[in-house]
Amino acid sequence: MIGAVTLNLALDVTYDVDELVVGGSHRVTVVRQRAGGKGVNVARVAATLGHQVLALGFVGGLTGELVAEELFDAGLTALLTPIAAETRRTVTVVAASNGDATVFNEAGPLVSPDEWRAFNDRLPWARMSVLACSGSLPPGVPADAYAELAARAREHGVPAVIDAGGAALVAAAKAGAVVRANASELRDALGPDVTIDAGTRQLVGLGATAAVITDGANGMTAAGPAGAWRARPVERVAGNPTGAGDACTAVVAAALADGVEVDWPEILRAAVAASSAAVLTPVAGDLDLAAYRRWLPSIAVEPL
Amino acid sequence: MIGAVTLNLALDVTYDVDELVVGGSHRVTVVRQRAGGKGVNVARVAATLGHQVLALGFVGGLTGELVAEELFDAGLTALLTPIAAETRRTVTVVAASNGDATVFNEAGPLVSPDEWRAFNDRLPWARMSVLACSGSLPPGVPADAYAELAARAREHGVPAVIDAGGAALVAAAKAGAVVRANASELRDALGPDVTIDAGTRQLVGLGATAAVITDGANGMTAAGPAGAWRARPVERVAGNPTGAGDACTAVVAAALADGVEVDWPEILRAAVAASSAAVLTPVAGDLDLAAYRRWLPSIAVEPL
Repeated sequence: MIGAVTLNLALDVTYDVDELVVGGSHRVTVVRQRAGGKGVNVARVAATLGHQVLALGFVGGLTGELVAEELFDAGLTALLTPIAAETRRTVTVVAASNGDATVFNEAGPLVSPDEWRAFNDRLPWARMSVLACSGSLPPGVPADAYAELAARAREHGVPAVIDAGGAALVAAAKAGAVVRANASELRDALGPDVTIDAGTRQLVGLGATAAVITDGANGMTAAGPAGAWRARPVERVAGNPTGAGDACTAVVAAALADGVEVDWPEILRAAVAASSAAVLTPVAGDLDLAAYRRWLPSIAVEPL
Repeated sequence: MIGAVTLNLALDVTYDVDELVVGGSHRVTVVRQRAGGKGVNVARVAATLGHQVLALGFVGGLTGELVAEELFDAGLTALLTPIAAETRRTVTVVAASNGDATVFNEAGPLVSPDEWRAFNDRLPWARMSVLACSGSLPPGVPADAYAELAARAREHGVPAVIDAGGAALVAAAKAGAVVRANASELRDALGPDVTIDAGTRQLVGLGATAAVITDGANGMTAAGPAGAWRARPVERVAGNPTGAGDACTAVVAAALADGVEVDWPEILRAAVAASSAAVLTPVAGDLDLAAYRRWLPSIAVEPL
């Protein structure tokens, strides 16, 4: 079972309007809402690809109840730690006139030291074959939370996949995790002049079991102890790039969960196909399964 | 006790952002939320002026729970009819850069015929000294709901104040209510060329017990069987005009609730002072009580 951690769970609310006018008053034509956060996207994609997932995170207040309800309705098993503060919302306003999405992100709820401890205490290590952690940290959670989780995963013999940027990416690499980041997060971590290929290898040099760096339409680079590879999408895909990186994380986590020998070229192939198939769908966390299956055999992977 | 009806109750959410950029991603710096809808503004202003109020409306789902909680926290007694559908939200984004408020209004929840009947059946006529109805109608509530409520109020010997525009304004007047509208709603009801003074009298001619038409910074006109009057604010006030009309409705309802002989020049004086004092506060439903008391003695009322 893939443990998919979203420390900063959200209720993602989407408002469709005809046109967005600053200072205007708008009739919302359609309201959609569902559980959100990068770890939830990972859980959704992994479930779509046929894997068993366990969504992990904090929920508080009535908004937290809505998040828990929606995860249940989506068929995702969840183990949620209650907190006193209210779960955050995000509101995305989509204008029919031009498709523009304007996003408003509430700050995350304050997590107390006791709540953080409770979250850690209930992690079902024996049931998890991999731990995937993605997204921002809410206030109150220690800044080195991901490195701490990666270290505990290692103690339990569970592989950890950490999607993080900047200092958290370096710390997760040093803790021996499989790390996943995008090109901009890599540069935030290792400096503005680092190339993707060199940076990916550098993360392994720091201690990462493996590193996967996504670079949008240019594809992805992976490095592990046995080498480094690059893969590119079969075709350029227009759509919603939000959630494409999470699809990659889901594929990597799923491959590690399978427990068979890790074949990075094969994983990269699947990760590129899944990321492209995620771009095709309008909502982050969704995946066009037919496109994924169609692209999978054709993706070229080259060793570096 | 003033029964303040809000058939289309809402949870009003306000997001402060630094600057609103269409297509951008925004960090929400402050989230505020409270019960909203024009009848709630009426209830808040009446309570601020020292009157007993009973907030009446529909609540559904978790958003409805938040509305009920906030009314309770605000010290407003409420008698709320549960509905199956979820109470609507409004989201107002306020940009610190220029103070612009951009509003997103969700559609109201569907109210079933049984729920509408339940609302009517539980109206506590014996406890209400006046019934004030304000704001839009949610889907499912009959289009002539306000006229129906005014007719039932008359049967129970309870004066009704109806804040409505267009056809609903004419229907409420014909049903013998005290009607309140703004200049634009008056023109929607009686034609684009009607003057405020003539239109106000015309509503009484149609059957209204009295009519009060608000005209922003120009003040208000009232007409009743004994005459017509006009009153103007003491000074021009800069601020948030949303809720100024509701402050007028609150004053009119409070005066009728007092049950003593109705003195329209006196009511107009208080209504103008309260409307101006409402503009001073940034949030609809609030009122600057010190400003109200300061202005009250100085407002000139002239007979027409």
